[in-house]
Amino acid sequence: MGTFQVELKKVVDDSYEIEVGFALEDKLIADLQDGLVGKIHKFAVITDSNVKDLYGEPILHRLQDAGYQADLFVFEAGEKSKTRQTKEMIEDAMLEKQYRRDCCVIAVGGGVVTDLAGFVAGTYGRGVPFINYATTLLAAADASVGGKTAVDTPLATNLIGMFNQPEKVYLDIATWKTLPKREVISGLAETIKHACLGSKEFFYYLDEHMEEILSLQKEACEHIAEENCKIKYHVVMKDERESGLREVLNLGHTVGRAIETVSDYQLLHGEAVSIGMVAEAKLAYRLGYVTEQERDAVIALLDKAELPIRIPEYIDRDALVKKLYTDKKVRDGKLRFVIQKGIGDIVEFEPGVFATPIEEQVAREIIMSI
Amino acid sequence: MGTFQVELKKVVDDSYEIEVGFALEDKLIADLQDGLVGKIHKFAVITDSNVKDLYGEPILHRLQDAGYQADLFVFEAGEKSKTRQTKEMIEDAMLEKQYRRDCCVIAVGGGVVTDLAGFVAGTYGRGVPFINYATTLLAAADASVGGKTAVDTPLATNLIGMFNQPEKVYLDIATWKTLPKREVISGLAETIKHACLGSKEFFYYLDEHMEEILSLQKEACEHIAEENCKIKYHVVMKDERESGLREVLNLGHTVGRAIETVSDYQLLHGEAVSIGMVAEAKLAYRLGYVTEQERDAVIALLDKAELPIRIPEYIDRDALVKKLYTDKKVRDGKLRFVIQKGIGDIVEFEPGVFATPIEEQVAREIIMSI
Repeated sequence: MGTFQVELKKVVDDSYEIEVGFALEDKLIADLQDGLVGKIHKFAVITDSNVKDLYGEPILHRLQDAGYQADLFVFEAGEKSKTRQTKEMIEDAMLEKQYRRDCCVIAVGGGVVTDLAGFVAGTYGRGVPFINYATTLLAAADASVGGKTAVDTPLATNLIGMFNQPEKVYLDIATWKTLPKREVISGLAETIKHACLGSKEFFYYLDEHMEEILSLQKEACEHIAEENCKIKYHVVMKDERESGLREVLNLGHTVGRAIETVSDYQLLHGEAVSIGMVAEAKLAYRLGYVTEQERDAVIALLDKAELPIRIPEYIDRDALVKKLYTDKKVRDGKLRFVIQKGIGDIVEFEPGVFATPIEEQVAREIIMSI
Repeated sequence: MGTFQVELKKVVDDSYEIEVGFALEDKLIADLQDGLVGKIHKFAVITDSNVKDLYGEPILHRLQDAGYQADLFVFEAGEKSKTRQTKEMIEDAMLEKQYRRDCCVIAVGGGVVTDLAGFVAGTYGRGVPFINYATTLLAAADASVGGKTAVDTPLATNLIGMFNQPEKVYLDIATWKTLPKREVISGLAETIKHACLGSKEFFYYLDEHMEEILSLQKEACEHIAEENCKIKYHVVMKDERESGLREVLNLGHTVGRAIETVSDYQLLHGEAVSIGMVAEAKLAYRLGYVTEQERDAVIALLDKAELPIRIPEYIDRDALVKKLYTDKKVRDGKLRFVIQKGIGDIVEFEPGVFATPIEEQVAREIIMSI
């Protein structure tokens, strides 16, 4: 009998750059030529049916024109495609085209594409590098920092996945113009969430410049892309494995995700989160963490962004309360919510614990009131 | 336009202990009670249909008797189960039983179980801890060090997976007695491979003690379990990401894996690797890296271990040559083989490159000769 110690202590450097700008397709190619992913010359461009013609094909052709080997792997757009089956379909298509370990994945699209493609890259050949080319505001706000990748299963959202950091992220603001307006607005919910969590100054910037933002004026878009990265980065940096602080990014998401599911995805993610933020601002007021004015300012800003601030009539509120219990923050069968403190601050319930236990009755009353 | 730097440099400690001994079930429970995986009290015991009754159930009951919540997740034994579908089936069963992120996976079985369960753990809730309780010689030789986990797909072996280090590995030598003799012998192929790669002394130990090994005498078993760990550890330690040195572990595997697949898994992994090692020893002789005596000593030791040293008649050799091109070491469409140098040494083709390009015609002639 004996024991044998395997020593595997090492320094890992997963640092990467986020580039914010207009029409970054050529910059991507230039970066590759400058050795962004070393000598790799084979690229799997993963995209969805919405983005394929607009950005997938153009990037594919630029890669091919630059002398790289590249193929396009397209799946049907929408959250419903974020499954193990789609991952498998892409893997098989890559294998069919002889992709081995010496390739790089380029995700071109919104959050669904970057979540899925990042996961594909993470397990393909036990990990190949990947690059995110984000074409939505939501991806800029949500998927560009943090390294979270995942798929959904019939029984759980985002539960099968991994932490996987990209080589570089491009936030191409020019692409936002091709988004349906409803998508842009949906993306603003996460932006407002970030402001509520991390920056009073940014909150008032959004309030003042909402018109420019909604009309997608360049300067305002760049500013919000950068502020989103900054706030999310500061939260994520302090807690890469979601053990504590990162939970605050769940602001508005306890009720939000439940609404999204109960609506059977009739509501977009950001729309559902907006309603969730209304609920959680009301909760914060009730618990004494925000003033009446602050609560109303949050709701007014969501409204100004043309986001929904009431639970739609067709939603069964009892089903909604029940659905809250599938939230991943539930502990020992008890609901837990992230609560904002004032504007731009958060509540640390106890050291390292940012989600506060809430009685079902309280949650129910709030849900019935909006 | 602007860029934003995400700094993610950190020290990661994936160190773990391998415990070699007889009947380690109680030691496992004692380690958990001593906090091996912190406060986790929910365990998914993943095992296969062969091992379920012998070790899966007993470990399950010990866990439950110790007051832990535990469930058994069983899949059909055999390499053919190492698929994305089996992974999905286990995930769904775990979700069904309300497993969230606060659980630990215990893999009980041979290489297929540890490969698959380690991969399940790596992507479940974006990563939960796992423990390997290895019940075969092959797992001791192959799966205990290195952190490789994977599944097979119709188009490729082990190409979808990830590097994931266990919390601890138990090599329970008592379990080898319940293995079919053919499995024990198959496991010896990787042991002999390790000797060929890393230790002349161990090679001659095997030659001298083969009878005790084949009759599973305790001391000899412990010695080979430990030597396997040691040699593999030294190779893997120097190259955790398989960028260079780790390739040497592919000795015998270029031809071996192709035979395994073309035989439609009629040959066990170790049996196929044994034939692959014969091919690659002949290749080494042809290229001047081993003497005639050394080549013959390798073939004789494999034979002494009762491993096959000829390609079975039913295998289509043309299909076999073609199959070589699906090897993950193929680069720019060219075959690459790991070649041993003498006994206990390896060939470094150029700094950091251990797989040597081989003309198809040469590979074909060797394959036709055995």
